[in-house]
Amino acid sequence: MRAGLFVLVVGPSGAGKDTLLDGARDHAVCAQRFHFARRVITRPAGAPGEDHDSLSEADFARREAQGGFLITWRAHGLSYGLPSTLLDVVRAGGHVLANGSRGVVAELARRVPHLVVVEVTAASEVLAQRIAGRGRESSEQVLQRLARKADVLPPSVPALRAYNDGTPAEGVERFVELLLGLRPPMALRSLPLQTPEPLCVLHPDDAGAGGTLEVVAVHGGRSERLCVPVTVAGDGSWVPPGHIGLDVRSAERLGVPTGAALLVRTVAPARERALLRKKIRGEPLGELEYRHLLREVVDGRFERTELAAFLVAATQSLSDDEVQGLARARAALAQTLSWDEPMVVDKHSIGGVPGSRITLIVVPIVAAFGLAMPKTSSRAITSAAGTADAMETLARVDLTANEVSACVRSARACIAWNGHLNHSVLDEVMNAITRPLGLDSARWAVASILSKKKAAGATHVVVDLPWGPGTKLATEEAAHELARLFERTGQAVGLQVRALVTDGSHPIGRGVGPALEVRDVLAILRGQADGPQDLRAKALLFASHILAWHPRVGTLAEGQRVAQELLESGAALRAMDAIIDAQGRREAPVLPGACTFDVLAPHAGVVEAIDGWAVAELARAAGAPSDLGAGVDLLCEVGQRVAQHQPILRIHASSPQGRDAGQRAAERMVRANPAIRVGSEEACLAR
Amino acid sequence: MRAGLFVLVVGPSGAGKDTLLDGARDHAVCAQRFHFARRVITRPAGAPGEDHDSLSEADFARREAQGGFLITWRAHGLSYGLPSTLLDVVRAGGHVLANGSRGVVAELARRVPHLVVVEVTAASEVLAQRIAGRGRESSEQVLQRLARKADVLPPSVPALRAYNDGTPAEGVERFVELLLGLRPPMALRSLPLQTPEPLCVLHPDDAGAGGTLEVVAVHGGRSERLCVPVTVAGDGSWVPPGHIGLDVRSAERLGVPTGAALLVRTVAPARERALLRKKIRGEPLGELEYRHLLREVVDGRFERTELAAFLVAATQSLSDDEVQGLARARAALAQTLSWDEPMVVDKHSIGGVPGSRITLIVVPIVAAFGLAMPKTSSRAITSAAGTADAMETLARVDLTANEVSACVRSARACIAWNGHLNHSVLDEVMNAITRPLGLDSARWAVASILSKKKAAGATHVVVDLPWGPGTKLATEEAAHELARLFERTGQAVGLQVRALVTDGSHPIGRGVGPALEVRDVLAILRGQADGPQDLRAKALLFASHILAWHPRVGTLAEGQRVAQELLESGAALRAMDAIIDAQGRREAPVLPGACTFDVLAPHAGVVEAIDGWAVAELARAAGAPSDLGAGVDLLCEVGQRVAQHQPILRIHASSPQGRDAGQRAAERMVRANPAIRVGSEEACLAR
Repeated sequence: MRAGLFVLVVGPSGAGKDTLLDGARDHAVCAQRFHFARRVITRPAGAPGEDHDSLSEADFARREAQGGFLITWRAHGLSYGLPSTLLDVVRAGGHVLANGSRGVVAELARRVPHLVVVEVTAASEVLAQRIAGRGRESSEQVLQRLARKADVLPPSVPALRAYNDGTPAEGVERFVELLLGLRPPMALRSLPLQTPEPLCVLHPDDAGAGGTLEVVAVHGGRSERLCVPVTVAGDGSWVPPGHIGLDVRSAERLGVPTGAALLVRTVAPARERALLRKKIRGEPLGELEYRHLLREVVDGRFERTELAAFLVAATQSLSDDEVQGLARARAALAQTLSWDEPMVVDKHSIGGVPGSRITLIVVPIVAAFGLAMPKTSSRAITSAAGTADAMETLARVDLTANEVSACVRSARACIAWNGHLNHSVLDEVMNAITRPLGLDSARWAVASILSKKKAAGATHVVVDLPWGPGTKLATEEAAHELARLFERTGQAVGLQVRALVTDGSHPIGRGVGPALEVRDVLAILRGQADGPQDLRAKALLFASHILAWHPRVGTLAEGQRVAQELLESGAALRAMDAIIDAQGRREAPVLPGACTFDVLAPHAGVVEAIDGWAVAELARAAGAPSDLGAGVDLLCEVGQRVAQHQPILRIHASSPQGRDAGQRAAERMVRANPAIRVGSEEACLAR
Repeated sequence: MRAGLFVLVVGPSGAGKDTLLDGARDHAVCAQRFHFARRVITRPAGAPGEDHDSLSEADFARREAQGGFLITWRAHGLSYGLPSTLLDVVRAGGHVLANGSRGVVAELARRVPHLVVVEVTAASEVLAQRIAGRGRESSEQVLQRLARKADVLPPSVPALRAYNDGTPAEGVERFVELLLGLRPPMALRSLPLQTPEPLCVLHPDDAGAGGTLEVVAVHGGRSERLCVPVTVAGDGSWVPPGHIGLDVRSAERLGVPTGAALLVRTVAPARERALLRKKIRGEPLGELEYRHLLREVVDGRFERTELAAFLVAATQSLSDDEVQGLARARAALAQTLSWDEPMVVDKHSIGGVPGSRITLIVVPIVAAFGLAMPKTSSRAITSAAGTADAMETLARVDLTANEVSACVRSARACIAWNGHLNHSVLDEVMNAITRPLGLDSARWAVASILSKKKAAGATHVVVDLPWGPGTKLATEEAAHELARLFERTGQAVGLQVRALVTDGSHPIGRGVGPALEVRDVLAILRGQADGPQDLRAKALLFASHILAWHPRVGTLAEGQRVAQELLESGAALRAMDAIIDAQGRREAPVLPGACTFDVLAPHAGVVEAIDGWAVAELARAAGAPSDLGAGVDLLCEVGQRVAQHQPILRIHASSPQGRDAGQRAAERMVRANPAIRVGSEEACLAR
């Protein structure tokens, strides 16, 4: 006998768990398919709230001691218990549905064969309204409940979300749909097929109405999910009943071996197709419409062609109001972290300027001042180094959410990799479509970036908008327009945002590549006179804008003074050391690669231009960012006079192979588009 | 030993067959993979043109008599032959590449195991330029060659196109790419999988670099093609080497049994992705850019998501210039029919008005005058009847291209189904994406419609643009704007176009459904006084606009006079009879279904509105258009006073089941949105 599912329904106060469970109990098919667990509570039976078995504290304790409970927990001064007989139900193949608490998830997962968590959620403004409308609890209790919202579910248990911020009837309909879509656990079978698109094959007995499946696998304390359309195998021998056949790549992505039990749910057809089409026709959508639409995107209810059509339409027309609505919708959908801090600051750069590793200077200055700055940064995608790559030359960057909290407690800040921390299924789905199409919408990105900062618990954010040839912003006007949109959208989601338009026409600092950029950063933190002054000035500018927000500072001029003092006094360097220690210091930092090759000026003259992207390409050719020591060191500045054969840039790599690859790339480039253009003496003299 | 391919390269003068074949001969891999056939020609060996074996006419005849040729043909006063030894080459598994002629394709297909035709083509303006640039042939010979262009390839032989209207180097590159993509024939294996998207599985030995395959199957005198991305089966037992596994639906679509030999070609990756992205970014494309892009769309080189993105972008922004460029690009890509007629007229309606079967009156009037009008029409997609459905109550409508020609010869006109005749792979690919997305771009349609009329050989086209609620054009202004675009775009592709804005606010005629509409049409053609006058007037309007183009008529007033005379004299009725006979008269015409149900006025009053779409929905509920006799007869007009329980519409069906379904639909509709709205007596009195 295959064990059934144990579905634990959790959710914050006001999310409406009881309403949804009552609705499901009244639904004939749901009532037949699920065994509804009756809780034992140390509350009088006549009290308002759910129907339960009532026990005195003494009787509860006695029953617990006798092993009468599968699990127990305490909340709002009461004891709750789920009877141990529920285990017999699931062992006999039945499915149990129980009202529970986040706190017991991890323990319960060890006690039942197939635990599934269904998290009932609603946007926080809806929660707040609902709780205010009750009178059952004291205000203190309400606050306690809302604070508990930040409890993150253990990622080792498959969890699904039930949204309940419309009418009760809508919420019940969605909840029932979700429950009825749940299937008994299915065994993975990796099919020896390399398909261009994910393929999922079911036995005809299991196929049902086809459609889309959401497949969740849990391994190594992490869960992976996949949404994939169903293929039915007419020939039953390909995939036996109870199994789910996936193409090689999809199976590998789930990361569990053939035969592993997977949580599988049939995803109901999209309800919000009309909204998708509305946007495809070029009409604007409001916040609520985006909220409903994006949920279904995350649920995998749309086809790739539909999403592509939607995203092109959204790229071509997205008014300021829409960006704000979209940001609010995304913020409402995200799980929000809350910090026990009056101010939590963050910084974002839309990128496009090589070098410019100011985050590694701004964060320690702000931390030295005492503000909380849990910074998460990306690794390089197309550039020579991301902030996370640079930080990795000094410390661990792949931190868990708990480790980030610990860092902020001990060092006021961190500089962590955002890969697993801010993972957004929505962005993943969208990027899988926009990247191959070369679609890039700055306006869409504003909503995405700010909603993620909001979800990460930030209160104040500075944004760096470099403009110039080779950056994402061609003109200064475009940069200022985007700056205004960032600030207005920040207001819409409840963030203080300051967006600064900066010069992106040339690299900042001298090194390009993780270790070389960190060398520049440390020179500034250590107060070395030979450190790159453009990097120092830009870092101080951003730090002072952040500090100016603090009541003790108040003005930008005072911010500038304080930031400079923290840098010059060595306080920022000490803060950086504390951050490195908190994250986990590398035994030996990665230094710029010892294998070097110098590119020489082809003739005497004046340096006319440095092409940041060509420099980054050389750094990548030499192995950056996967070789953290690889990169390019700029040995000249724009406007500088150089002699013939004077070294103008130096390629670093950790291996001779990397250096040689960089050298070959440089030689190719000299002919086509040199990274550094040196004007002839004649041209100089003519000026 | 599996036989090799016999690739016959054909193409009109000026297309550059020789250049491409020479280029392929110089390509090392091509030269190794193909045996290049050397032709025998009765032309002196030293003459300009291809290198060949030269024989006198007498020696040629002798060799032919001895069975020395696989096939022979005559052209421009010379005899051409392909040596019979080529058959040994393909039987031994080699692939032959030969320069041939369209005329021998059908016969050669019977003599070699696997014939593939590669048709070298270029836009006609390029052909004309190239031929003018030569001096080899007399002008008479050039004209003869160009006239042969219209020869259609036998559809029972798989054919591929090589475009050669850029530089010779570009042409050779594409031609070589096409040749190297050809695979030995593969055997179909239908996989027992119902996949949401086409799936094609190859053995790892056959997989090559993956990508997309074009698969062509030939059966029953027709060829079917499919473009599908490659999946590689890691487990060789699923699909053996030399086989191609296709999902059930794709295999069914090809229409050949498991084991059938298929022509398979690896489609090279899209070159024109940059153009696609340019449009996706919202930038306009020119004619040449569309020409290159659309070819690759037809070749299946883009993914569905890319096409969806492109089509949304094209729907949102398509300038007048772009519509014209697009129309010219599409016309250049299509195979153009040529008629031996000074004027060939056509008519198109963008649809949206039930009834309005004026084509069945316009065509016989125009034919009675003596103008050629090879009209092809659609069947209903969402309406109750298309023109082809209506005509089918009287005659065969599924005609071949040759039958259309024969009709025009004997009766000056036809009214045929456009399903197989004007089949456009491009439209099929596009519709597969736009229909599910609900994308409908009138501007895109202008280019599609006019390029198809041009390809069908029309010289003059009238277009009906009904506007009003429920039609595709909401306002009269939108209709006039589209009319201007139609006329300007016609000019751009070399068509005389007259677009008429008409009232689409209510049904035209009384019957809705194939046989009922034909009843109205025949009443007008027969001059019955009780025929619907709105139908008569609209048909005369369109006929007179067409006749006015003829020099003998010259003005619209004279066109109106002539059209009326042709109708009233019975000449149009006789022309219709001739058309019906030419197409193949039904032994007994389909009459309106004898099972009827009358919908009665709910109360006395005045008919305020007739909702054409609701009427059409009733007709469909009763079985139209698949039951040609089913439909709705309108028994009242807008503005007419009706008594309580007076019949206002009659549902017809050929079976009681159909009638009952229509009745149920009418009863449902009365409550929600009645097809005919009757105002109360009070409302009438109040006016």
